[in-house]
Amino acid sequence: MNKKSKSAISPTRAEDYPEWYQQVIKNADLAENSPVRGCMVIKPWGYALWENMQRSLDKMFKDTGHQNAYFPLFIPMSFLEKEAEHVEGFAKECAVVTHHRLEPNPDGQGLRPAGPLEEPLIVRPTSETIIGAMYAKWVQSYRDLPIKINQWANVVRWEMRTRLFLRTAEFLWQEGHTVHATEQEALDETYQMLDVYADFAENFMAMPVIKGEKTPGERFPGADMTVSIEAMMQDRKALQAGTSHFLGQNFAKAQDISFQDQNGQIAHAWTTSWGVSTRLVGALIMTHADDDGMVIPPKIAPSHAVILPIYRDDAQRAQVLEYCNRLKADLESQAYAGRALEIELDDRDLRGGEKKWHHVKRGVPLRIEVGPKDIANDAVFLARRDTGTQASTPRAELLANITQTLDAMQVNLFERAQQMRTEHSVEISNASDFRDYFTPQNADSPEIHGGFASCYFSSEEEVQPLLNELKVTIRCVPLADNDEPGTCFLTGKPAAKRAVFAKAY
Amino acid sequence: MNKKSKSAISPTRAEDYPEWYQQVIKNADLAENSPVRGCMVIKPWGYALWENMQRSLDKMFKDTGHQNAYFPLFIPMSFLEKEAEHVEGFAKECAVVTHHRLEPNPDGQGLRPAGPLEEPLIVRPTSETIIGAMYAKWVQSYRDLPIKINQWANVVRWEMRTRLFLRTAEFLWQEGHTVHATEQEALDETYQMLDVYADFAENFMAMPVIKGEKTPGERFPGADMTVSIEAMMQDRKALQAGTSHFLGQNFAKAQDISFQDQNGQIAHAWTTSWGVSTRLVGALIMTHADDDGMVIPPKIAPSHAVILPIYRDDAQRAQVLEYCNRLKADLESQAYAGRALEIELDDRDLRGGEKKWHHVKRGVPLRIEVGPKDIANDAVFLARRDTGTQASTPRAELLANITQTLDAMQVNLFERAQQMRTEHSVEISNASDFRDYFTPQNADSPEIHGGFASCYFSSEEEVQPLLNELKVTIRCVPLADNDEPGTCFLTGKPAAKRAVFAKAY
Repeated sequence: MNKKSKSAISPTRAEDYPEWYQQVIKNADLAENSPVRGCMVIKPWGYALWENMQRSLDKMFKDTGHQNAYFPLFIPMSFLEKEAEHVEGFAKECAVVTHHRLEPNPDGQGLRPAGPLEEPLIVRPTSETIIGAMYAKWVQSYRDLPIKINQWANVVRWEMRTRLFLRTAEFLWQEGHTVHATEQEALDETYQMLDVYADFAENFMAMPVIKGEKTPGERFPGADMTVSIEAMMQDRKALQAGTSHFLGQNFAKAQDISFQDQNGQIAHAWTTSWGVSTRLVGALIMTHADDDGMVIPPKIAPSHAVILPIYRDDAQRAQVLEYCNRLKADLESQAYAGRALEIELDDRDLRGGEKKWHHVKRGVPLRIEVGPKDIANDAVFLARRDTGTQASTPRAELLANITQTLDAMQVNLFERAQQMRTEHSVEISNASDFRDYFTPQNADSPEIHGGFASCYFSSEEEVQPLLNELKVTIRCVPLADNDEPGTCFLTGKPAAKRAVFAKAY
Repeated sequence: MNKKSKSAISPTRAEDYPEWYQQVIKNADLAENSPVRGCMVIKPWGYALWENMQRSLDKMFKDTGHQNAYFPLFIPMSFLEKEAEHVEGFAKECAVVTHHRLEPNPDGQGLRPAGPLEEPLIVRPTSETIIGAMYAKWVQSYRDLPIKINQWANVVRWEMRTRLFLRTAEFLWQEGHTVHATEQEALDETYQMLDVYADFAENFMAMPVIKGEKTPGERFPGADMTVSIEAMMQDRKALQAGTSHFLGQNFAKAQDISFQDQNGQIAHAWTTSWGVSTRLVGALIMTHADDDGMVIPPKIAPSHAVILPIYRDDAQRAQVLEYCNRLKADLESQAYAGRALEIELDDRDLRGGEKKWHHVKRGVPLRIEVGPKDIANDAVFLARRDTGTQASTPRAELLANITQTLDAMQVNLFERAQQMRTEHSVEISNASDFRDYFTPQNADSPEIHGGFASCYFSSEEEVQPLLNELKVTIRCVPLADNDEPGTCFLTGKPAAKRAVFAKAY
C-alpha cells in the first residue's frame, strides 16, 4: 500500500477500511446515497459498470437456454404467506403498499394517503411467489417443461443498516426461476447456474471464488439447498457474491405447480431460483480497488483507455487533438473480449495533474498521454492502472499490443486477488487456533483479522455459540476436494466435511 | 382482411377490434394479465421485442450524448408536493408505501402491515422530483452543465381501466432528464429527443408518426411545453407514442437547481424530460398485426426467420436436420441492421400446420420450410409474413438476398401503415363535417370512424365541449407545414394553426 501522503484516497485501506470503501465510491463517482432512506443513486460510471456485467451475464444465461421476461413489482400479501419459511424470511423487511392515491389533508396543508387497498401489496423482495403463481397456470403437461426464465429487476428489502452497493433497501438484480419435471434436472440446473456465476466472477470480474453449499441455517428461506460463490475482500472478510437455490417441491406444492407426466400421472414439479445483484459492484471494489481509487478489470470496464492530450497553446492543441482523434479511431477499430474498444478522449480544460488523478481514481485500465514531444517520436506515454507501470511507447506498438496488454491486466488482477486469498487462508484443527485467527492482532486495524479458515465441523448447532462470540459465520461447505472425513475442530467428533469459516459482509 | 373462416385470429379486426387486439397478444404469447390488479406479465417473446427496442433507442440516446444512471424507486411524499401542477397530475393514481414490515395478526391468522413509516413513500409515477433533488446537489457551476442522463426503469400509475401494454398500473419505460444553462439549449434538447423518437418509430418500428406540440390542456403536469409523436392505429384511433417535455424553470425553481454562471451570477437552470414506454409494444401490434396475428418489422424482430424441417422418418430427419443446421449457420453469419441474423430452428414434435401457424401468429418475418424434395433441388420454401407471398427459392438465392428481403419488408410495412394513415386523414373546415367524420357509420363496427382530421382551431376551450361530446381529442399541433393562418372550423374566428383531431388511446 502507498504511504498516506502519496495515496489519492484518504484514509487508506490500512487506516480505515470501511471509510476507504466509501471514499473510493465517492472519488470514482460510482454512486451516492439518496434522500430516500437506504436507497442509492447509481451514477453513470457505476451504472455503466453494472450494464457491462449485465451484458456478459445475460449472454451466459441465453447460452444456457434461458429467456428473459418481466413479472409484476407487487406481490399480494396472501401470496407471500403461502410458503411458511419464505414468509418468515422476508416479512420483517418488506415495503408495504396500502393505498392507491393521495388526497389533501383536512386542514389543507399537504397530502395524506387515501384509497385503501383491500389487500396490501408487498414490493417484491424476491419473486418466487408471484412468478410461481404464473408458472402454476403455464405448466399443465410434461411438454410445457422445462421453463427457464430470468428477469432483470429491482427489488426491495427494508434493511436497517445500509451501505452503498453492499446492502441497500432497493437494489438491482437478476433472478432466474426454472421449473423441471425431475429432481435431477432441477439439481443440475442449480449447479449449472452456480458454475455460470463462478465463471463470470473469475473470468470477467477477475475475482476468485469458492463454490460451496450453505449449511441449513444459511439457506434461502424455503429452499432445500442453497449453493453460493464466496469471495475474499481485501479486509479478509467474505462476501457472498451469488446464490443458486434448489427449491425441491416446496414452492411447487405451496402454489400447485403440477403437470401430467408421460404416463398420465399428475406430479408436482421441481423448481430452482438463482440471483446476483448490484452487490457485485461492491465486491469488485473491495477485490481490486487500491489506495489510489478504483481499479476495473478490462473485460467489464466501461472505457478501456483514456487519452489525455497535452498542449500549451492553440497551435499545439490543433496538432495534438488531431493526433489523438486518429489514435482513438484506430484503437476503436479493434475489439477486445467481444466488443469494440471503448476509448475516452478527455479534452476538458483542467490542470494535467487533476485530470490524470480523476481517471486513476475512476479505475480506467489504461491512460495514454499525448504531447507534442510524443508526437515528434510517433509515441505516447502509456500507464497501466493495475501495476502503475508507465513508459513511452511507440504508437505502432500500442496499436499492436493493446489487447494483449488488457489481457495481461485481466490475468494480473485475478492472480493478485488469488494470491491475497491464498495468503490469508489456513486450515485450522483446534478451537484455540480458531479463536486466535479471528481475533484482530493490531489495535490500530480492528477490521483486520486472519481471513478464511478451513475446518472440519460436526454440526452447525454445536459450533454456533463460538461463531456468534467471534462474529464468524460458516460461509459454505466447498464442493471441491471435500470427500475425506476428519475431526471437528471444536468438539473433536468425527466430521464428514470441511467448511470455510470467515467474518462476512 | 381475410374472411373469418380463413383467419388465424378470431375475431378479426373488422368483427371486434378491441377483442382482436387481446387475441393477437394471447396467440403471439406476448404478455398476459397477472393476479396483481393492473400489472401485466411480459412473456419471453414480448420481452425480447422490448429488449430490441431498448437496444436501438439506447444507442440513439448515447449517440446524442446521454448516459444511463439509476435513481430510487421511491419518492418521499413531500417531494411530490413541491411542484403544484405536478402533484395535481399524479396524486390521484399513486401506489403509497406506508409500512416497512409484516407481523402476524393478533388472532394468529395471516399477516398485517406493521412498522409505519414517518413519511409515506410514493412508488415513482415519473421521477422529476427525486432526480431533481439529486441534480440540485450536483449542479453548482456552469461547468457542471449540461447534465444529460437517462434511466430505464419501472413506474407505477394506478390506472382504473387497464389494457395490456397500452395502459397498465406498472409499466417499463425510459425517462431522460436533462439540465441546461440556457432556455435555448433546453428547447433544442426537447426537440432533439422528439426527433430521436420519430426516427425510432419510423425507421425501426416502421410506424409513421406526426410530430407536434400538445395544447396547454394536454401538457405534462409541470411542463411549459410538451411535444409528442402521434401514430394512427388500424382502428383509425391515435396513439401517443412518445413525449418530450420542456420544463422551463418550473422544476428548477421548485427544487432549487441553480448554478453560478460564467459572470459569477446565480441562475436557475432549465430542465427537460422525455420518455417512451412498453406502450410502444401495443402501438406496434395495432400498427402491423393482421387477422392472422402479430407482424414484426425485421429491424426489431427477436428472430428474423424460423426454419421448419419437414420429414417422414428418421432417415429423412437426419438428412433434413443436417441441411437445416447448415442453412441456419450460413444465415447467422450474415448481419442485418447492426446485428447478426437470428434464426430459429423449430424441430418440435408437432403437426406441420400447427407449427406453421404458431410462427405466423408470433409474427416471425420469414418462414423457411425444408423437406427432402427441397433439398434435392438445393432449394427451400420461403414465405414472407408481411405479404403472405411464398415460393420455392434456391438456397443460394435465399443466402444472397435475405437482407434485401428484410429491408423490403421493413419498407413495405412502413408504406402500408403510411397509406392507411393517408387514406383516413382529411382536412375539415366546418363543424357539420367534423361531426359526421367522427360518428361511426356502421352499426356493426362501432369502433370504426373517420380517422385523423386536420382543422384550424381558435382555442382549446372553445372546441372542448364538441370534442367531449364526440369523444375526440386534440392530438397535437403539427410542427411541420403549419405556418399559414386560417379560420376555426367551429367558431369561424381567425386561427393561427391547424391541429390533428382524433379519437385516441
